[in-house]
Amino acid sequence: MKFTIEKKILLDNLINVTRAISTKNIIPILNGIKMDLTSEGLYLTASDSELTIRSFIEYKEITKIDIEGSIIIQSRFILDIIRKLPGDLVNFELVDGLKIRIYTDNSEYNLNCLDPNEYPIIKMEEQKDPFIINSNIFKNIINQTVFAISTQELRPLLTGLNFKIVGDILECIATDSYRLAKKIVKLDKATDDEINIVIPGKNIIELDKILAEDDNLEMHIFNNKVVFKYKNITFQSNLLSGTYPNTSNLIPTDFNYMININLRDYYDAIDRAALLTQSKDKNIVKMSVNGNEMLISSFASEIGKVEEKLSIESNNTGNIDISFSAKYMLEALRTFKDEQILILLNGEVKPIVVKSVEDESLIQLILPIKTY
Amino acid sequence: MKFTIEKKILLDNLINVTRAISTKNIIPILNGIKMDLTSEGLYLTASDSELTIRSFIEYKEITKIDIEGSIIIQSRFILDIIRKLPGDLVNFELVDGLKIRIYTDNSEYNLNCLDPNEYPIIKMEEQKDPFIINSNIFKNIINQTVFAISTQELRPLLTGLNFKIVGDILECIATDSYRLAKKIVKLDKATDDEINIVIPGKNIIELDKILAEDDNLEMHIFNNKVVFKYKNITFQSNLLSGTYPNTSNLIPTDFNYMININLRDYYDAIDRAALLTQSKDKNIVKMSVNGNEMLISSFASEIGKVEEKLSIESNNTGNIDISFSAKYMLEALRTFKDEQILILLNGEVKPIVVKSVEDESLIQLILPIKTY
Repeated sequence: MKFTIEKKILLDNLINVTRAISTKNIIPILNGIKMDLTSEGLYLTASDSELTIRSFIEYKEITKIDIEGSIIIQSRFILDIIRKLPGDLVNFELVDGLKIRIYTDNSEYNLNCLDPNEYPIIKMEEQKDPFIINSNIFKNIINQTVFAISTQELRPLLTGLNFKIVGDILECIATDSYRLAKKIVKLDKATDDEINIVIPGKNIIELDKILAEDDNLEMHIFNNKVVFKYKNITFQSNLLSGTYPNTSNLIPTDFNYMININLRDYYDAIDRAALLTQSKDKNIVKMSVNGNEMLISSFASEIGKVEEKLSIESNNTGNIDISFSAKYMLEALRTFKDEQILILLNGEVKPIVVKSVEDESLIQLILPIKTY
Repeated sequence: MKFTIEKKILLDNLINVTRAISTKNIIPILNGIKMDLTSEGLYLTASDSELTIRSFIEYKEITKIDIEGSIIIQSRFILDIIRKLPGDLVNFELVDGLKIRIYTDNSEYNLNCLDPNEYPIIKMEEQKDPFIINSNIFKNIINQTVFAISTQELRPLLTGLNFKIVGDILECIATDSYRLAKKIVKLDKATDDEINIVIPGKNIIELDKILAEDDNLEMHIFNNKVVFKYKNITFQSNLLSGTYPNTSNLIPTDFNYMININLRDYYDAIDRAALLTQSKDKNIVKMSVNGNEMLISSFASEIGKVEEKLSIESNNTGNIDISFSAKYMLEALRTFKDEQILILLNGEVKPIVVKSVEDESLIQLILPIKTY
């Protein structure tokens, strides 16, 4: 294996594939990046066995291919090495069997490598007729939901993002059982089969980082895995097995209180009220609605208290006090871009629903916290 | 106590005084900021007993003074509170004895305070005829030396910065006994008494952050403390007691090898060679000089090796191999702005000295590491 390539091209592709390498991985070979140089170009593959990312650099983009071949380089320092090498071009040359020489005019690294024959065989499948979604729309789906997944391994399914496709409607749901985020998107094509899969949240977060530019994203869904294709990248994730809880009956459709409020003002008021509760686990603030006035307050016995007044429009002149996690509410509010939003309430121990005034595609739900 | 002030003015001053508050402090009252509002203006004081910072906001800069008075506010959330409050103005009002109301139109914090009478009495002295140094020059002195102080409490004096003034020459020295940084500056006035003090490095680092703009810095030196005055800020630090080691005979004046090298190239070569040694404590790289060629190399058995070639000018055509800590060398090199620098050597186990080609005021010394 011997070739010369532009540093920038190699680096961009290496950054993407190394996202598959887990810091918790204990299988030595999976800390490596497989490089396969053929007459077609250079394939870079990294995997933590649940997530595999492959990037392909076409031969036309490679400055010079002298000798084809395969090797596994250690991922640990490779990004820094390529980044710090001087000049625009970098040379790779396999020497002494399992050593690679990475060099420019006056700088030379000789790195120990691993045997490419020992790398697990990973099948990257494709379907003839995948779903195609714009990458920016898909990023939006991720960012409006993924924060609500569970970080607790107790209920593994809740650490994933639920994708349901019925007809041409894609529904994406995340919940940690204290809050729920739901986004609905219309697809370009309809499916006859109902699809209901759960993709590990940590993998979806890596996919989000890869989707940097506006382009098509192909989604190939299999029984036990999903393959995303984006530009020259193939991204294959396992699916979480089991049946995702049916959440459709959790979200109320009728509400006693429909409150119309300025998003920025509401966000800032909660943000300020949350300040004094930072050190606490629960981060509880209280929202008191009284006709057209809202009071956001919090209290920390050692430090003091804070009160924020907001004017609102409500369909109900009654009073209601409801307490919730400021952290959860702020994360939910960050998914909206609207000037005004709707806060929908039924009672002090009933879920709080947040929606856009005009756009029905996004729903955020937060369970209240009993403070008595 | 009741007053109205521009948020920005208050915040800038609070940020500076809170630098005196130690996160390790266990005396509750020293977690507070003392506010004294008089007809002259507002004094803000914070202290960790070894470092005291006082900032004074003149009455002309305060929008409205209603009632004078004193209080100690808790520092913990105060910066965030002021930062996050809406609008340009913020109101303070003492209520119920030891509570302060911090409010704008619709936002109100009520914070528990501490009794100002319980705050330690801190005398902030001044001399009639202090040393005056330009703040940018002083920042430069700090940044070219302070990184070399010791972080080990075993030899407390070495955790400080040694300032020596003889005549009109200020000499600043830092050493952790493995390396030494020395900077010499000519002062505007001469002193008859020889001055030799050691200022705690951690305090000097806070002073550096305060010196944001080009202005005069007054240095008032007392037996057991030093007071810096800069704009509206008084910065008082304790001194470390004891006699700082005499380092003048540690720095050789004659050298067998005088090597002239491009600073950027040398820095980058060591930076790249150091990559593979990152995980190691010692971070050792080897420099091999052979006539007009220099080789920087390092080796990590599991990972591989790296070699960097550099062309140099040397007064000596002989060979020399010398190993040192890449971290120490990189930190020393960062203090130079020159295009070319001098690497001065006497032998494999003798100190390495780094100097500017033209400017004699800065000397960096690094002890080699024996690798055999």
